[in-house]
Amino acid sequence: MVDKLGDDERAAALAGLDGWTAVEGRDAIAKTFTFKDFNAAFGWMTRAALIAEAMNHHPEWFNVWNRVEVTLSTHDVGGLSALDIELAKRMDALAGG
Amino acid sequence: MVDKLGDDERAAALAGLDGWTAVEGRDAIAKTFTFKDFNAAFGWMTRAALIAEAMNHHPEWFNVWNRVEVTLSTHDVGGLSALDIELAKRMDALAGG
Amino acid sequence: MVDKLGDDERAAALAGLDGWTAVEGRDAIAKTFTFKDFNAAFGWMTRAALIAEAMNHHPEWFNVWNRVEVTLSTHDVGGLSALDIELAKRMDALAGG
Amino acid sequence: MVDKLGDDERAAALAGLDGWTAVEGRDAIAKTFTFKDFNAAFGWMTRAALIAEAMNHHPEWFNVWNRVEVTLSTHDVGGLSALDIELAKRMDALAGG
Repeated sequence: MVDKLGDDERAAALAGLDGWTAVEGRDAIAKTFTFKDFNAAFGWMTRAALIAEAMNHHPEWFNVWNRVEVTLSTHDVGGLSALDIELAKRMDALAGG
Repeated sequence: MVDKLGDDERAAALAGLDGWTAVEGRDAIAKTFTFKDFNAAFGWMTRAALIAEAMNHHPEWFNVWNRVEVTLSTHDVGGLSALDIELAKRMDALAGG
Repeated sequence: MVDKLGDDERAAALAGLDGWTAVEGRDAIAKTFTFKDFNAAFGWMTRAALIAEAMNHHPEWFNVWNRVEVTLSTHDVGGLSALDIELAKRMDALAGG
Repeated sequence: MVDKLGDDERAAALAGLDGWTAVEGRDAIAKTFTFKDFNAAFGWMTRAALIAEAMNHHPEWFNVWNRVEVTLSTHDVGGLSALDIELAKRMDALAGG
């Protein structure tokens, strides 16, 4: 069972992420990824989906054309957990390579 | 070049679609698809992506777990076109089979 | 760690699978899936990929147009294991629904 | 309608491709792509599938784990056409970026 991050853990985790921001009015983090075109965006989504399904931890995400807006939160704990931080980092790694 | 649907064409097209509704305050249509789980939802998205890319007409869509909320509109004409109606029908066909 | 199936387990497992056959000259099972078109075939592959990656157990598969030829074996044990039987069943379930 | 490449066109096209070779005993070209892992391989396949479906020209491909073996030929002309050369180039571009 994963735990909700405490205030200090949360601050430290966010400081270690690149481009993710706290969502207003909700214990969640968000980032917008922009790609060259739909092909690149959906290829990235497929790779992220493979990771999310293996983690059994899924994003909320919105896509239009070359843009993907991702929001991460852990429903079971009502806020951010280590799973969100891990998925955020793995999404960043996919987008960079 | 595709044309914006006139009022009568628009009404007739919407009447022929199953479960799609006009979006409030915007010339677009929307529908929420619900699947058994993330696997089924993302499999459907992949099939819809193959169709959208071949049509060169892409959805706005939001996914969380087993749910996909789709909004269709044609940016080039500032509203609904025959492309939206075709993509809506093909998405429905994929979800049904 | 997964174990190689013994002869009796192997025979019983194969008897419980639909359309899978033993591969000649190799301790593996195979099945050819046929779909309506490429769209359906690749949608199924995406769903199977999500399952395979979560199991950390991957198929050998060949696709052309609407056809997917799958071979399953467990490299770590040099033959069939329970993982192959599970993946075969889940692939069948995806193809049926 | 696409035409079968003549001998000179075929030689020139092959000379312009990186790592593709003529298939023994068949008028087709082939290349093996190797990726970091299954995630990267299947992400690439999804992007290539989007292109292939939009071209209505599909590969023969075999995947196991991080490796994808691609064979291209144009069934309608019984050999290589400009479609194969284009798809080969686009697959190379996807693998490079």
